[in-house]
Amino acid sequence: MKLYDGGRAPNPRRVRVFLAEKAIAVPTEQVDLGQLQQRSDAFTAINPMQRVPALVLDDGTVIAESIAICRYFETLQPNPPLFGRGALETALVEMWNRRAELHLLLPVATVFQHLHPAMKIMVDPQVAAWGEANKPRVTQFLQFLDRELKSRSFVAGTTYSVADITAMIAVDFMRVSKLAVPDDLVNVRRWHDAVSARPSAKA
Amino acid sequence: MKLYDGGRAPNPRRVRVFLAEKAIAVPTEQVDLGQLQQRSDAFTAINPMQRVPALVLDDGTVIAESIAICRYFETLQPNPPLFGRGALETALVEMWNRRAELHLLLPVATVFQHLHPAMKIMVDPQVAAWGEANKPRVTQFLQFLDRELKSRSFVAGTTYSVADITAMIAVDFMRVSKLAVPDDLVNVRRWHDAVSARPSAKA
Repeated sequence: MKLYDGGRAPNPRRVRVFLAEKAIAVPTEQVDLGQLQQRSDAFTAINPMQRVPALVLDDGTVIAESIAICRYFETLQPNPPLFGRGALETALVEMWNRRAELHLLLPVATVFQHLHPAMKIMVDPQVAAWGEANKPRVTQFLQFLDRELKSRSFVAGTTYSVADITAMIAVDFMRVSKLAVPDDLVNVRRWHDAVSARPSAKA
Repeated sequence: MKLYDGGRAPNPRRVRVFLAEKAIAVPTEQVDLGQLQQRSDAFTAINPMQRVPALVLDDGTVIAESIAICRYFETLQPNPPLFGRGALETALVEMWNRRAELHLLLPVATVFQHLHPAMKIMVDPQVAAWGEANKPRVTQFLQFLDRELKSRSFVAGTTYSVADITAMIAVDFMRVSKLAVPDDLVNVRRWHDAVSARPSAKA
């Protein structure tokens, strides 16, 4: 199999951190997003959505979408469980991973895509008003998350999960989006320090 | 348990169709979105994200996010499987459900939220340019889906899955967004007729 990876972009990193937590090594090929290589004919044939990451299996089957790739490896190698165990834990990890995606990673990425001058070549049209509208959403979600993290160690519960991966990478991506975690969100800061200290965070 | 439902909105309908396919009955309470009841203090205490659906278990645990609720019932009652079976099928259902969400349901909903006058009270600010920018994305994804459906019956493979539920509801939601499936997408039309003919589609 081969994993088509995308350097510093947040979604490819989600898969790399996930694989590091599982201690799974996968042969990787870099797709140069700065050169728009994801829109080349060769890569479009792999993923018509022109997005990384994409995992190509030995029989040529393509699995795109970060979380679909993660779930593939979770089923092949269930330990340590990163999507939860049992009906309730699985549902709560799914809920928090989606909250972290839809209400944190997506708004942070939207700010970057619609306001950063370097994204002009990729995002057509850039809608500055939409970028601006997403800034307060980021802060509001972090305030909610801070209240939640007052009483537990990780985003979805008492153990580390894929929801921590998504939320950590969203917070890290705030820097290029020129956003900052407010100083008073001490629980978010404590959690972010803890998950960033794991060896997987370097992936 | 109790399911907080939201009438004709697409996400609550995803859960209702899913439960109908599983033949699971859950006591339900309607949240009146037209009256902004999802922003009431009572509902905000249940889901601080102020969104439906939300499932409250007998011990008070809340599961929000449509797909998290669906996954909870999938684990409790695996048959018929709507999230796939085994590593590969599970990954492909996840991939297609996400593609249907991110590249079809989300753009269709964005057109509605940012261009429909009735959404002014809910979406602040409405960004008309962002609504317009999402219109071509809907058509592009449907063209891609049409090519895929040339060689198979359902969105994620040879059997009906949660990806069909998401895509069917996105297509149905195009009408209020004033969008239409192009006439020449015969495979999308054949698939949509087939999934709409299932008794669950009335849910």
